[in-house]
Amino acid sequence: MKTLNVGVIGYGFMGRAHSNAYRTVGNFFDIAHQPVLKAACGRNEENVKAFAEKWGYESVETDWRKLLERDDIDAIDICTQNNFHCEIAIAAAKAGKMILCEKPLAMNVAEGEQMVAAVEEAGVPNIVWYNYRRVPAVTMAKQLIDEGRLGKIYHYRAQFLQDWTIAEDLPQGGAGLWRLDVNEAGSGVTGDLLAHCIDTAIWLNGSIDKVSAMTETFVKERMHNISGQVEKVGIDDACAFLARFANGSLAVFESTRYARGHKALYTFEINGEHASIAWDLHDLHRLSYFDHKDDSNLRGWRSIHVTDGEHPYMDKWWVPGLQIGYEHSFVHQVADFLQGLEEGKPVSPTFREALETQKICEAVLESGKSGAWVNVEC
Amino acid sequence: MKTLNVGVIGYGFMGRAHSNAYRTVGNFFDIAHQPVLKAACGRNEENVKAFAEKWGYESVETDWRKLLERDDIDAIDICTQNNFHCEIAIAAAKAGKMILCEKPLAMNVAEGEQMVAAVEEAGVPNIVWYNYRRVPAVTMAKQLIDEGRLGKIYHYRAQFLQDWTIAEDLPQGGAGLWRLDVNEAGSGVTGDLLAHCIDTAIWLNGSIDKVSAMTETFVKERMHNISGQVEKVGIDDACAFLARFANGSLAVFESTRYARGHKALYTFEINGEHASIAWDLHDLHRLSYFDHKDDSNLRGWRSIHVTDGEHPYMDKWWVPGLQIGYEHSFVHQVADFLQGLEEGKPVSPTFREALETQKICEAVLESGKSGAWVNVEC
Amino acid sequence: MKTLNVGVIGYGFMGRAHSNAYRTVGNFFDIAHQPVLKAACGRNEENVKAFAEKWGYESVETDWRKLLERDDIDAIDICTQNNFHCEIAIAAAKAGKMILCEKPLAMNVAEGEQMVAAVEEAGVPNIVWYNYRRVPAVTMAKQLIDEGRLGKIYHYRAQFLQDWTIAEDLPQGGAGLWRLDVNEAGSGVTGDLLAHCIDTAIWLNGSIDKVSAMTETFVKERMHNISGQVEKVGIDDACAFLARFANGSLAVFESTRYARGHKALYTFEINGEHASIAWDLHDLHRLSYFDHKDDSNLRGWRSIHVTDGEHPYMDKWWVPGLQIGYEHSFVHQVADFLQGLEEGKPVSPTFREALETQKICEAVLESGKSGAWVNVEC
Amino acid sequence: MKTLNVGVIGYGFMGRAHSNAYRTVGNFFDIAHQPVLKAACGRNEENVKAFAEKWGYESVETDWRKLLERDDIDAIDICTQNNFHCEIAIAAAKAGKMILCEKPLAMNVAEGEQMVAAVEEAGVPNIVWYNYRRVPAVTMAKQLIDEGRLGKIYHYRAQFLQDWTIAEDLPQGGAGLWRLDVNEAGSGVTGDLLAHCIDTAIWLNGSIDKVSAMTETFVKERMHNISGQVEKVGIDDACAFLARFANGSLAVFESTRYARGHKALYTFEINGEHASIAWDLHDLHRLSYFDHKDDSNLRGWRSIHVTDGEHPYMDKWWVPGLQIGYEHSFVHQVADFLQGLEEGKPVSPTFREALETQKICEAVLESGKSGAWVNVEC
Repeated sequence: MKTLNVGVIGYGFMGRAHSNAYRTVGNFFDIAHQPVLKAACGRNEENVKAFAEKWGYESVETDWRKLLERDDIDAIDICTQNNFHCEIAIAAAKAGKMILCEKPLAMNVAEGEQMVAAVEEAGVPNIVWYNYRRVPAVTMAKQLIDEGRLGKIYHYRAQFLQDWTIAEDLPQGGAGLWRLDVNEAGSGVTGDLLAHCIDTAIWLNGSIDKVSAMTETFVKERMHNISGQVEKVGIDDACAFLARFANGSLAVFESTRYARGHKALYTFEINGEHASIAWDLHDLHRLSYFDHKDDSNLRGWRSIHVTDGEHPYMDKWWVPGLQIGYEHSFVHQVADFLQGLEEGKPVSPTFREALETQKICEAVLESGKSGAWVNVEC
Repeated sequence: MKTLNVGVIGYGFMGRAHSNAYRTVGNFFDIAHQPVLKAACGRNEENVKAFAEKWGYESVETDWRKLLERDDIDAIDICTQNNFHCEIAIAAAKAGKMILCEKPLAMNVAEGEQMVAAVEEAGVPNIVWYNYRRVPAVTMAKQLIDEGRLGKIYHYRAQFLQDWTIAEDLPQGGAGLWRLDVNEAGSGVTGDLLAHCIDTAIWLNGSIDKVSAMTETFVKERMHNISGQVEKVGIDDACAFLARFANGSLAVFESTRYARGHKALYTFEINGEHASIAWDLHDLHRLSYFDHKDDSNLRGWRSIHVTDGEHPYMDKWWVPGLQIGYEHSFVHQVADFLQGLEEGKPVSPTFREALETQKICEAVLESGKSGAWVNVEC
Repeated sequence: MKTLNVGVIGYGFMGRAHSNAYRTVGNFFDIAHQPVLKAACGRNEENVKAFAEKWGYESVETDWRKLLERDDIDAIDICTQNNFHCEIAIAAAKAGKMILCEKPLAMNVAEGEQMVAAVEEAGVPNIVWYNYRRVPAVTMAKQLIDEGRLGKIYHYRAQFLQDWTIAEDLPQGGAGLWRLDVNEAGSGVTGDLLAHCIDTAIWLNGSIDKVSAMTETFVKERMHNISGQVEKVGIDDACAFLARFANGSLAVFESTRYARGHKALYTFEINGEHASIAWDLHDLHRLSYFDHKDDSNLRGWRSIHVTDGEHPYMDKWWVPGLQIGYEHSFVHQVADFLQGLEEGKPVSPTFREALETQKICEAVLESGKSGAWVNVEC
Repeated sequence: MKTLNVGVIGYGFMGRAHSNAYRTVGNFFDIAHQPVLKAACGRNEENVKAFAEKWGYESVETDWRKLLERDDIDAIDICTQNNFHCEIAIAAAKAGKMILCEKPLAMNVAEGEQMVAAVEEAGVPNIVWYNYRRVPAVTMAKQLIDEGRLGKIYHYRAQFLQDWTIAEDLPQGGAGLWRLDVNEAGSGVTGDLLAHCIDTAIWLNGSIDKVSAMTETFVKERMHNISGQVEKVGIDDACAFLARFANGSLAVFESTRYARGHKALYTFEINGEHASIAWDLHDLHRLSYFDHKDDSNLRGWRSIHVTDGEHPYMDKWWVPGLQIGYEHSFVHQVADFLQGLEEGKPVSPTFREALETQKICEAVLESGKSGAWVNVEC
């Protein structure tokens, strides 16, 4: 067994999800490389110690620069707010560490390009946590498309709908709410939610050529948790955009945190000449599939319960009919990353691939401001 | 065009549903025989006149015996409470009239046998309004089974769930509530609801050999609308039974009027060696279908929207995707009955076929009392 | 009973749907005014005679100008291809006839404005067949919004997805296929399908201020049925647009005839501060409803089976749990129109109201060409 | 932190599920007691060593008697075939070990009674792995019932449908197939699947008084993996039964391994006077709920996505909208068991409680043979 000594920076929601993945992968997957929870890093010593104890980290650090200096760390996992991704990633690359970075890659394209340059120059394995690719039903969608079952693609549509920021007295900034502060998050739903939709979309359907977007900030001012002042809200609360893919298909994307009744409803649907596919995160173990080749009187959308041993990743878990949950997508990403180390191959989505998503996000935000169609430079 | 002069006895819920079917069939189906609404018959003259005017009946009668004497009536449609079916049907047969009788055929097997004898002796066309056979999705289920797509059948299950009699202060008897009075209805959910389930079941899956039932009357006494007295409730409020079909398959049937949240939820599911089928009345235009012959990783229940021109009866209505409603099943039954007249053939379910359902109902009620398995004599 | 003598021009899909509505309304609704099928009009004498016989029209005409000259006709129903709407409607208005016109109102805004001027000058009752407003679940959505149950609206989204024109060898033009010929239809999915979505949207959510659209014609040339030549396809096969409503809500609309697996999937969803609503045409008797005021641990989308007597229009039909179909929306429109005659009030959507939809469609098509946001002039 | 040193006997499907629970509970739950994976025990040394290494067990044993003798083991987890439960449990109780036993408790009631006597005499904490009680949606059903939201219960129905034994050439006996061998399993679907349904039912709805069952073995003979001979199949392939609860409600239960299209479809529905509840294992994170107290026109089945922090156990996992999987139910059971140790209280279902399920199973099997109603002795 080869060990991969991991140092995780940040101990919030993603810190937990990643830690669980590292701890669990070896129980279910047979891969020579196995992660070791070497160090947890966070600014608040008490908190990071509690976190380390809960998850079994061997040590703690309160300064990420210290963590990078340690020889016993092979890989850095960046789970911080978005505004730290760039600086840490570049330093980690220089320190020769592998990097697993939370999404979105960066605050903007300029940062992303520096990060890509840094990891490529350093030659370190790198990956971004666009975890939804590895929900088995989503991976299966990719397989079906690659097998040619859909034929020519006409339409792509995706949504990511939430409703947790409707209350006007919800503050912005700080623990748990940094996603509402543009200085920490870079953008609102575009970078947080649409970035997921875009990552999946370009993986499944190829490049996006151009976009036309509409953005809105419904609540213009919110109390800021750090400053204690009412401050202008700089993020986009909602964003919808039209897009044209390089393959000629048309797309509609939409995200909001004001869709009453939806908690984390990420959906996509793809309509092809021969077949169509639909999926949503609220019932993530089901793939909807319509095949025009079925006997014509028996055509109908199939609800495929993606829990059989022949479905992606599912031979590793339980028995048919028994579903897995959200966090398993992170386990799968770690498994694939470890497998990539075994084989000496990069594993998607790399920083470079995630940069494409960043570029589309930036084009979307620009179009939202200008009202014009914006070409995506790739 | 050959006319079929119809006299309808009863002007309640079923009087309306049948009248609509006679009035509508010619607009959508191309059949030489066409019904003419010749006479409506009911005991209350004012009411029957209002009904006749609303639906375009040419005349009214207040005594069904008078109706049977008329030479201008070809067919009698019996929409009365169950306790009148037998007497009217036998008299109508003797008068040489065709008969379309509401379900269940009779109050009990003894009555049903007399009715069958009468129509067969008279040689008059006869049919019972088990209308759900002719919901397109149900007819399609029959086609799929007849094509052998399901293979050997292992399981049949059916339910008919309602919730309209939970309130204890709901009275029994009289207009709209005769179904709660055992003297008018013969039985409760068994004859009213399970009879539908049984008719469909033996049509789709063949004879039932034996049954073991459980019945219950949750509300023991109710005010009677006619007598004005609190009277014992004689009907079964709920009934569930196990059954064995002649083909070796096992079945579970259940019906109740105490299933909070269900208005008219008639469901059935059939599990075969190769495929399974499920349907329910609340979304009656959909057929669920699972085919084991699909590529194994793509197997899933298909939701077939039964609205295409190649689906049963649907070439007569609108365009794909546009659904029809409950009452269309009656239109289909009239269309098939008229087509039978054209071809000189009996149309299912005849009185004799409906007698089999009556026998199963009686066996169920008997088993509910005795607690023992009861063989169905056919 | 007061009669409304109707003359119908056109005997295709809509001719049948409207005829059925006129024939049926009196059986289920109690309104003093009752339609009489006075005359059917069409260019092909043989066809129009067969149609008249099937539906019970008293007479036929082969020249619509003749029909307008008849004194025994109160109302003209225009079921022709779109390119005849304007000329017939203006002439009918001048002849003092009431007008019931198929949607979309006209080929373009210029025509629509002339039509509105004509009916308003003549002072004749007028209505456009945007029938989906009167699907009970849709009418109920309107009630819930008017009751303030949703509160401030944040999002509106609607789709109309079909898949019947994917085959490249499908011709354009002529009977059944005039919707593919821009000269007969005016536009493609925008006027045919999105017009429905827009009509419902502005009824439910108020005016649209501006739009940004993307249109596409996937199959560029098709054989034309009339000319026998391969001709350029002038319609939009697909159209998606972003919109801003006057009330501050954001919207996404999409329509296509290339969405494999969907026959007539008209959907809409509205997200408000307090509650959300969703509906689709494939299961048109269900309304999805999410209410934030529910106990917080018990919140969930409710699937309301819109078949109870207290639901809009449903007291007129059957009993709870038994659904109605597509064509009933037309019956409801006739019922409301007749009720309007009783009360001497205009009934929505009038020509003037339908002109607003036409203006939005035209703005959408213009934006689809220019790529810029287009303001809707109202 | 207090440790609970666990020795697990058996390393199959359940050995994995339990191991995962022990390893994971401390990362998500704050309980002073924490499990330590002290020893894994199995007859095949090579296999048990591989298992121990994969899951981090500190040691292995190949003789369960040796395991019981060890002083460093606090609790024994029995994951063997059913025919070993009794002997091991009695010995473990005598050795003063806590016991966590896989379901069903025993091969039959006689064994079960000895086991209950043993643990009660020894005074050791004991529990049976009826894990589905602790799926959050199921736990929530219990809460809603206990809060009185359903009122008087009229109906209970449950199914457990699978399709994995339809092929006649599937052998019986040995690794992975011992569930088909009556000598190892005790019974077929009754003990394996209906036992789950019964455990949940009596937890939610109280005692069952009597049952009437029908059982069937569709494939009469199968090759036996151990003997290499074709042997008679002694298990029940399918079983359905009617039941009456002590609270007056009626029930229907059904299980089979011949329901094509269903992998592990455990469903239940409860109809009460005021509200109804439904759940199924294929979408285990959703609870369907119908409340008669809703505004009458807005009543509908709610699909509650049981992923909010206020839902049972869900504050321990991710954020609203992100679902957990099958194995989490085991984690919850361990958490509750540890909490019981903290508080010195027994945790359901104890051996005694599981004995009630065993008695009902035995009554069901007896009724299946005799055809008569059988009273449950409790």
